[in-house]
Amino acid sequence: MLVVKIGGAAGIDYTPLCANIAELHAAGERIVLVHGGSDGANQLGMRLDHPPRFVSAPSGHVSRYTDRQTLEIFMMATALLNRQLVEQLAGLGLPALGLSGLDGGLLRGRRKDTIRIVEDGRQRILRDDWTGTAHTVNTPLLTTLLDAGYLPVIAPLAVSAHGEALNIDADRGAALLAGALGAAALVLLTNVPGLLRDVYDPTALITHIPAAELEQFQPLAHGRMKKKLLGAAEAIQGGVPQVVLADGRRQQPLSRALRGEGTVIA
Amino acid sequence: MLVVKIGGAAGIDYTPLCANIAELHAAGERIVLVHGGSDGANQLGMRLDHPPRFVSAPSGHVSRYTDRQTLEIFMMATALLNRQLVEQLAGLGLPALGLSGLDGGLLRGRRKDTIRIVEDGRQRILRDDWTGTAHTVNTPLLTTLLDAGYLPVIAPLAVSAHGEALNIDADRGAALLAGALGAAALVLLTNVPGLLRDVYDPTALITHIPAAELEQFQPLAHGRMKKKLLGAAEAIQGGVPQVVLADGRRQQPLSRALRGEGTVIA
Repeated sequence: MLVVKIGGAAGIDYTPLCANIAELHAAGERIVLVHGGSDGANQLGMRLDHPPRFVSAPSGHVSRYTDRQTLEIFMMATALLNRQLVEQLAGLGLPALGLSGLDGGLLRGRRKDTIRIVEDGRQRILRDDWTGTAHTVNTPLLTTLLDAGYLPVIAPLAVSAHGEALNIDADRGAALLAGALGAAALVLLTNVPGLLRDVYDPTALITHIPAAELEQFQPLAHGRMKKKLLGAAEAIQGGVPQVVLADGRRQQPLSRALRGEGTVIA
Repeated sequence: MLVVKIGGAAGIDYTPLCANIAELHAAGERIVLVHGGSDGANQLGMRLDHPPRFVSAPSGHVSRYTDRQTLEIFMMATALLNRQLVEQLAGLGLPALGLSGLDGGLLRGRRKDTIRIVEDGRQRILRDDWTGTAHTVNTPLLTTLLDAGYLPVIAPLAVSAHGEALNIDADRGAALLAGALGAAALVLLTNVPGLLRDVYDPTALITHIPAAELEQFQPLAHGRMKKKLLGAAEAIQGGVPQVVLADGRRQQPLSRALRGEGTVIA
């Protein structure tokens, strides 16, 4: 069992990934594909005169401020990507089945009703935020679908205890899924070769991080890489033996990641 | 087993329907909810500077001309409605699970690569159209989900033999589903009381149509009602014993439809 997460950045060609998934699926591998959608949501928000707003937490993590309208834009943008991926996989003959974490209580989460942000050097509180953190996977639902031969493609939403839809971080959602499903590996595909010692030098790839030392590498992570390392740490804590951060922009991105071409955390 | 179809017109309050579904679900009824989304797609298309274009077939049926960009707008708009419905049902404690006909090959259809239209009194051919007609239901997938206790909420897409996403008519899709699932009834909720003898007189409701005489009532149908009667006929042909066209804008719309408040075709 593999859990694979891909980003949703503009202009990504998903053809190599889908072809690679088809190869592994044909070889009997069970795969769950999780995707992002932030960039699509940003673009759609701009076109709908509701541009994205990003906020920084005191910890330095940057996240999207999700008012209700932004949540609906996020729902639409992630659904479009989800359906495009399902369509592309279906075109290869794969029984792809798109879900969001909202469906059937697939990902249950806690809503952050208020978030503490840092703006102009000061901390303040934002309300009406529809982001959250997933904490529980409806594993029987996924197992039922996997047993029936389907390839789940999952959009980064969760459902709160009150039934509310929540925007969640896809890397951390994928980590939670990988742990719940007992995946042999979590592969986080991105648009860089992996974790870099120097963010400006793509050849400065860190090829291996012992799981116990992951914390020490956190200072090297910038921007979204912070969430990927956080997701990696959560997956390891959840019992996933191996997490690979790897480049999703090349041929056979998944097989290459599994061969260790990237940053392997184990 | 009931299959219920609701429209996607602007300003619809889905609260009464969702509450009614919760009552029937609690009483042990199996329900599949199918929704439209044309109006949401029209509005989104306008906002994204890609307004809808409707075309008339020689038969008089009016349908949306769906170029690729329109298909993607349709995907987003129907997904938003799907997720809003799932969210509202989840808020009532129901295990709603959103899918489109694309997912897991739920609805397989034929693409109309070219469509014949009537424009300014002349027939011509349009290409690059992404509409289609569903012909096959993945019944085992739905049965698996229903057996596991889920309440499927289905967006009107189908998948072609080549894996392409297709915009399908939701009334006819619901009819196909009702037949495949052996539903006791198909309820088509709309914004009129049912089929009217006089489209301008909401009190001129036709309360009962013997299934064998349905054809004779076709001339009374205008606009979208044509597709509803076509769907009703297809459901009856598919073995569904009862189809009800009823008003979705009132309290307990489903229970009232099942009590015969609407146009009952049986």
